[in-house]
Amino acid sequence: MTVSKRSAISPKRDEDFSQWYQAVIEQAEMAETSDVRGCMVMRPWGYSIWERIQQLLDQRFKAMGHQNMYFPLLIPMHYLEKEADHVDGFAKECAVVTHRRLVSDGNGGLKPGSPLEEPYVIRPTSETLIGQKFSKWINSYRDLPLKMNQWANVMRWEMRPRLFLRTSEFLWQEGHTAHANADEADQQALAMLACYQDFCETVLLMPTLVGEKSEGERFPGAQKTYSVEVMMQDGKALQAGTSHFLGQNFSKAFNIQYTDQQEQRQYAWTTSWGVSTRLVGGLIMTHGDDDGLCLPPQISPIQVVILPIVHDESKRSTVMDYARQLADQLTGIHYAQEAVRVMVEARPGQQTWSWVKKGVPIRIEVGMREIANDQVSLSSRHLPYRDKTTLTVAQLLQQLPDRLHAVHEALWARAQAWRAGKSHMVRSQDELYDYFKSNEAGFVGGFWVPSLDYEHQLREDLSVTVRCMPIDRSEGPGICIFSGRETSCLAYFARSY
Amino acid sequence: MTVSKRSAISPKRDEDFSQWYQAVIEQAEMAETSDVRGCMVMRPWGYSIWERIQQLLDQRFKAMGHQNMYFPLLIPMHYLEKEADHVDGFAKECAVVTHRRLVSDGNGGLKPGSPLEEPYVIRPTSETLIGQKFSKWINSYRDLPLKMNQWANVMRWEMRPRLFLRTSEFLWQEGHTAHANADEADQQALAMLACYQDFCETVLLMPTLVGEKSEGERFPGAQKTYSVEVMMQDGKALQAGTSHFLGQNFSKAFNIQYTDQQEQRQYAWTTSWGVSTRLVGGLIMTHGDDDGLCLPPQISPIQVVILPIVHDESKRSTVMDYARQLADQLTGIHYAQEAVRVMVEARPGQQTWSWVKKGVPIRIEVGMREIANDQVSLSSRHLPYRDKTTLTVAQLLQQLPDRLHAVHEALWARAQAWRAGKSHMVRSQDELYDYFKSNEAGFVGGFWVPSLDYEHQLREDLSVTVRCMPIDRSEGPGICIFSGRETSCLAYFARSY
Repeated sequence: MTVSKRSAISPKRDEDFSQWYQAVIEQAEMAETSDVRGCMVMRPWGYSIWERIQQLLDQRFKAMGHQNMYFPLLIPMHYLEKEADHVDGFAKECAVVTHRRLVSDGNGGLKPGSPLEEPYVIRPTSETLIGQKFSKWINSYRDLPLKMNQWANVMRWEMRPRLFLRTSEFLWQEGHTAHANADEADQQALAMLACYQDFCETVLLMPTLVGEKSEGERFPGAQKTYSVEVMMQDGKALQAGTSHFLGQNFSKAFNIQYTDQQEQRQYAWTTSWGVSTRLVGGLIMTHGDDDGLCLPPQISPIQVVILPIVHDESKRSTVMDYARQLADQLTGIHYAQEAVRVMVEARPGQQTWSWVKKGVPIRIEVGMREIANDQVSLSSRHLPYRDKTTLTVAQLLQQLPDRLHAVHEALWARAQAWRAGKSHMVRSQDELYDYFKSNEAGFVGGFWVPSLDYEHQLREDLSVTVRCMPIDRSEGPGICIFSGRETSCLAYFARSY
Repeated sequence: MTVSKRSAISPKRDEDFSQWYQAVIEQAEMAETSDVRGCMVMRPWGYSIWERIQQLLDQRFKAMGHQNMYFPLLIPMHYLEKEADHVDGFAKECAVVTHRRLVSDGNGGLKPGSPLEEPYVIRPTSETLIGQKFSKWINSYRDLPLKMNQWANVMRWEMRPRLFLRTSEFLWQEGHTAHANADEADQQALAMLACYQDFCETVLLMPTLVGEKSEGERFPGAQKTYSVEVMMQDGKALQAGTSHFLGQNFSKAFNIQYTDQQEQRQYAWTTSWGVSTRLVGGLIMTHGDDDGLCLPPQISPIQVVILPIVHDESKRSTVMDYARQLADQLTGIHYAQEAVRVMVEARPGQQTWSWVKKGVPIRIEVGMREIANDQVSLSSRHLPYRDKTTLTVAQLLQQLPDRLHAVHEALWARAQAWRAGKSHMVRSQDELYDYFKSNEAGFVGGFWVPSLDYEHQLREDLSVTVRCMPIDRSEGPGICIFSGRETSCLAYFARSY
């Protein structure tokens, strides 16, 4: 059976996971590097996956009462000075705008001209700009909660860029809210965490670990950072989304005050939360196989591709007409409350592999033989390439939602199995060290008493970090693997992207 | 009748059009200025209008075969040196990134650190970056046409900013295509012009003038620039969208070559085209009245607002329940192929004026009296504030699409009448000068032989520019108002934003 060993992507995952990742992106024409340090160009297939993520998350945010706004790209430098932890966290990676025109350099080239009075920074995140406006818009308890979101590009110079996972510029959403009390703000941060978790699990089909970040991994300026952590097929963790309870740090830095019902001036409590184009990288590394990308049906920009099989050019228009009529019929079907997204491949030649590599859930072949029998030949992306099922058109129309759902279920089951196989619990520091010395990756859980010192030690000794500490403490108490003290806090340790 | 003289916006349009414009934006909470020079913050109402524009245009672009991509925000400085006209056009307004971090200034503040080897410019437009990638992706005639679009922010320092109309950063779409021959590229540019024209006229209800730009108004680097020009209520022109036939200027600067069917290497022919958040400003100045914004039904983020009238607090939940049930019923109705967008005002107090000022097409009041009679009280935004029609709920459900369409028709008729009243033809230079010396604004048509000298003269003498030259030459030939020579070319002259 040499057939089963053939794969569209070289190298295979188990040969070189990192190279495999690059090859999947290239073969599916999702994105490529550019001459701008660390910045990528998102090509139609990669960008359309991001558009789907945007569309589905935007609906969820709006249903939760968040309104979209848009704030400036640039931040006056002095804004960043107002919150000390925040500037410490981002200063090293800020793109700084210092001039407002280009002038001739006298040698036929250009140079920056007209220095600005105050430099601007391209937003690495917008807590500062938004905080300043919140302070203006919020006066009374009646103005709270204030709940907004922004879809935008941000910039953090990246010295070791990787397409989608780490790029100097990336696209994201950043939500920002302000509340009258700490508990409500913390609940909001947790509600957004739950929103991300649900989206990751039910739409992107990525099993998650959610919890609070340890001190060493907290967002600069946050009082608590919550995160959604996803395991990639190489066993490394990807931080898929974060939600921050900012306490009163930004409200004090930007004077976000309101008058409460007792006529007292109070500082508001704020949150922020975001996910980015990094999720596209997470999809690739969760579901991709040695034939390329493999997309969950709800997120795939195209759910069904119809491939006309033309052996005799004189029959091309007959086959194409049949394919287009079939597409019209399929578009009338709904799956997951949306009309099914169908495309007819119009390019001549056998294009099957291009759609396998792009990860489209269902492929349907139609040729003269199928037309004669009012049939189609159906393949599902998660099954071996050569598995084809012959269906009548009537059967296809009836079964399509179930067929899509079968891909959904299969990808979810596969991802869960992968993760289960690489998740372990340890009861001592030795077990933890043994594990990460003999295993490249995996999620390792253990009880611990949070300690920044141990975090530094782990990073230095093993390049391992605390990914998150589950909020639900029902598994405890247990014994801290480092200190031997009793603790109700569980932590998950892993190497990460 | 003092009532009719009352207005929500001060000053009124005929008192100070420019101040009126600012007041409409402020009262409708659409946008405001920021501490970033020339950059605005788009608040939910302003941004949601832009989201509607995006959504509807994006559908049209995709139906025309354009695919969305995303290119980097930053452009290496040397890219701009490659097309001489292009850099001349944009160098004066480029934001230049020169450093890649912030460091302590030694006095508790910050300063730029780590100079970049080569500065970057924040994209003022992306022909250069995209041209460089096109040169890589295009090899054969089979790769053509290549048709793409990008939704993005761009930056051009603006010394005289005005919300939506002129901001240093603005949001836009920029389409870019490459073709095998000049005619196909020119036809593509014209097809996008027609797309913009249709969208402006049938959705935004802004009567347009379309045609080619004169030499003095051409896009830097274009061979031909086409534009859609719209008249604002003060009689000034607003350039609402442009579409450029770039010839081979960018393909030669960035080496975009393909091998033709005769195996010869040829330079491709390219186009670019865009509209921006400026369209939101155009909407305000086309349809707004002395009570604020007035939105065409197809573009309004909310088409029907239901206002609960509560005189007796004990009845609040009864009225609110009734309002929400009504909203559910209305959401099932379709107008212009979309489900009607309905909102229930949940804030206590009489909020009618806030929705008048936001320009929502239909307002429906429900209180205990209406509930008792199974009725509603309906107002249309384009009619006087106090005009109310009592309808049964059954009548409302039946009539709503027609009621929305009545607003649509009324706004279109009003805008056309405005423009007709301020459009004139002249037959000599004297008539043209007389007109613009005694009139602040208006569109003036006349035959002319295109001449850059006359363009400069007009700008200097009258601050008037050639807005566009209609492509349809069927009205000619006539006599050039400047040179007296026969010409088939008509031009429209105006003062502009």
